[in-house]
Amino acid sequence: MSGGVLEGVRVVDLTSVVVGPVATMNLGDHGADVIKVESPDGDLLRRLGGMSRCGQLSPKFLHMNRNKRSIALDLKRPRARQALERLIASADICVSNMREAAMERLGLGRDALEAAYPRLIHCRLVGFGDGGRYAARPAYDGIIQGMGGMTAIFEEADGRPRFVPMTIADHVVGLVAVQQILYQLYRRERTGKGGTLSVPMFENLAAFVMSEHMGQLTFEPKRGEPGDRRVLDPGTQPIPTKDGYICISANTDHQAHALFRAIGRPELCEDPRFATVQARYANVSQYFSLRNAALGERTTQEWLDILGAADVPAGPSHSLMSLLDDPHLSDVSLFELREHPYEGMIRNIALPGRAADLARSDYLPPPLLGEHGREILSDAGLRPEEIDAMVAARELVTPEHGLS
Amino acid sequence: MSGGVLEGVRVVDLTSVVVGPVATMNLGDHGADVIKVESPDGDLLRRLGGMSRCGQLSPKFLHMNRNKRSIALDLKRPRARQALERLIASADICVSNMREAAMERLGLGRDALEAAYPRLIHCRLVGFGDGGRYAARPAYDGIIQGMGGMTAIFEEADGRPRFVPMTIADHVVGLVAVQQILYQLYRRERTGKGGTLSVPMFENLAAFVMSEHMGQLTFEPKRGEPGDRRVLDPGTQPIPTKDGYICISANTDHQAHALFRAIGRPELCEDPRFATVQARYANVSQYFSLRNAALGERTTQEWLDILGAADVPAGPSHSLMSLLDDPHLSDVSLFELREHPYEGMIRNIALPGRAADLARSDYLPPPLLGEHGREILSDAGLRPEEIDAMVAARELVTPEHGLS
Repeated sequence: MSGGVLEGVRVVDLTSVVVGPVATMNLGDHGADVIKVESPDGDLLRRLGGMSRCGQLSPKFLHMNRNKRSIALDLKRPRARQALERLIASADICVSNMREAAMERLGLGRDALEAAYPRLIHCRLVGFGDGGRYAARPAYDGIIQGMGGMTAIFEEADGRPRFVPMTIADHVVGLVAVQQILYQLYRRERTGKGGTLSVPMFENLAAFVMSEHMGQLTFEPKRGEPGDRRVLDPGTQPIPTKDGYICISANTDHQAHALFRAIGRPELCEDPRFATVQARYANVSQYFSLRNAALGERTTQEWLDILGAADVPAGPSHSLMSLLDDPHLSDVSLFELREHPYEGMIRNIALPGRAADLARSDYLPPPLLGEHGREILSDAGLRPEEIDAMVAARELVTPEHGLS
Repeated sequence: MSGGVLEGVRVVDLTSVVVGPVATMNLGDHGADVIKVESPDGDLLRRLGGMSRCGQLSPKFLHMNRNKRSIALDLKRPRARQALERLIASADICVSNMREAAMERLGLGRDALEAAYPRLIHCRLVGFGDGGRYAARPAYDGIIQGMGGMTAIFEEADGRPRFVPMTIADHVVGLVAVQQILYQLYRRERTGKGGTLSVPMFENLAAFVMSEHMGQLTFEPKRGEPGDRRVLDPGTQPIPTKDGYICISANTDHQAHALFRAIGRPELCEDPRFATVQARYANVSQYFSLRNAALGERTTQEWLDILGAADVPAGPSHSLMSLLDDPHLSDVSLFELREHPYEGMIRNIALPGRAADLARSDYLPPPLLGEHGREILSDAGLRPEEIDAMVAARELVTPEHGLS
């Protein structure tokens, strides 16, 4: 009894690394029973992204795989494939990020699944959408960032492309995948019908970036350059203070004028270059440079006090370390200590904003590879001697085989 | 008859700028009837983010406000507030990003809404979650990026904090808002009950970044530094070629070894510094620098051909301009030309991955300020003379008042 909104919904998760796992964890966080199906080697992320005490639970893996149970099956073997088939037969949702050819070899091609399980919602995470010439290509976050415009906006701003230093395409498309699954789940509740969803990373990231930065290319014929110049201006940065950095958002005339007064330049409120939103947009570089020059004269905390009193929105540029100690996050217990059976005490990231009781009430620690294989197959109706035989043959890999 | 999965679901949208509008557009894209309630001045985004032909439909506004109808009400006036009350009484979902005090002045505080409309799903977009000390503060994308760790990861990588040059906190939290609304809609379908959702920007962005970069701070006591060093390494960048930039993801041993052979360094496959995932992680700077040195010797297209043949995942680093011309995106019609009644031909960004028919089948062009005010109030049961009186008193602002 998970207690979340998806209690009673079963997910078979055939994904690994980031985009799939963050999506299925979200479903698990909201109460679904998520069965993470891994190869005998396990999800690559278990060993990627930092060290762990037991050797297979990297910090990133820990943050993307709570509220799931793990089963490790060698899907090259017929009995393992049959076991997977049983799990899918019992599932409401299947999420995959294997290429279609690999799914077909497992007997899990989209047509086969639709025919056998009309209530199943099958979410295919793909790099590139069906019907386009890159459809068969694999996808990786860095390539999607590069092709999807994320690196381009740094090139526009700084003259040189740059990745966001996190797997942001994976995280964004993971959110889109959850959304698409929930739309389909809502439809199924009303019609009884499942179906296949394809969530392409490239198209989704391109839409995400271009909705902000298509700029004058929006018009046909084009009326000018792409990009929102205000956001792309090289001066749109955390601003150095005497001892660190501060972020300020003074968008409306009211806020900008309050900022001018706070930095001792009240005459700028009347200056035609800076008096209005449109004027500041047209003269954004000058605006930012005079603002930044003034802010170097005091510490971050001094400015936060002055700007807070003047009702100018501002905040610090946190480091990863100071973020962890932020007092507001402490008030809302975003980072909560949990006892992990194999890693000791770990800092879990709670689901933000739990007011509506959508989240599950229990907590399943991120699992070892194959930790729940026996119980999952037993629940699926396999007899103990069948399960023992699969373990002996390493068709089912469990922690009994030893941590590698 | 929109034809989408949310056909028959009505949304009253009290948001402006980015985070709310992207969320409600997504609901509209999936068939909901979204009523965008604006002040007589209109959504700030109408004039922010680039020029438009008619003066109130900036490119960013166009990309975040299709599939909505607009009504402009002066909510300082009692008849306008009564009209809004009627709209909310007919709604399934209300999305707001006003501060709670402003909502209470309109008689729309969370307790009042819950008491009056038990089936209503009220999604409150807030900067900072309830129960924390910043709860009353307004939120802006730049401040949330700074406080939520997005600028910190650039500081970790480059020694200086930087914003992602788009309003990425708004876009990410917009996706979270849709997700939370859909969870609640699914619950309502089963229980009949609505409820209030609070979606805090700060907590959500912090969770988004820290799930990737909490690193060794995940453990208590801390075992080392935050951050995934492989992702944060300054060498994790699009790589300069002879004529541009290329992105390469060679994560597995198989891919990395294929890359070593492709750049003419097969001996590295056996080199203990680079032979395995763990070894490359430990020697990431050396790994990236020798890789990057080799790639400068040919053009992007030459490398794409060589690496494609070797099955090493790679792609170009698109510019915003070349992204628009990408042939795969053309195959799938991501950017589609639409006739807009006031702007001429515009490039709309289609909803990616439309296979499951979740999307609406019609298309409502982004509206002028107040364009649908008369029809919305007429549908809500107001008599023509009542509506005329509100227009005459500028309680209801419509295009008849002239484009400003």
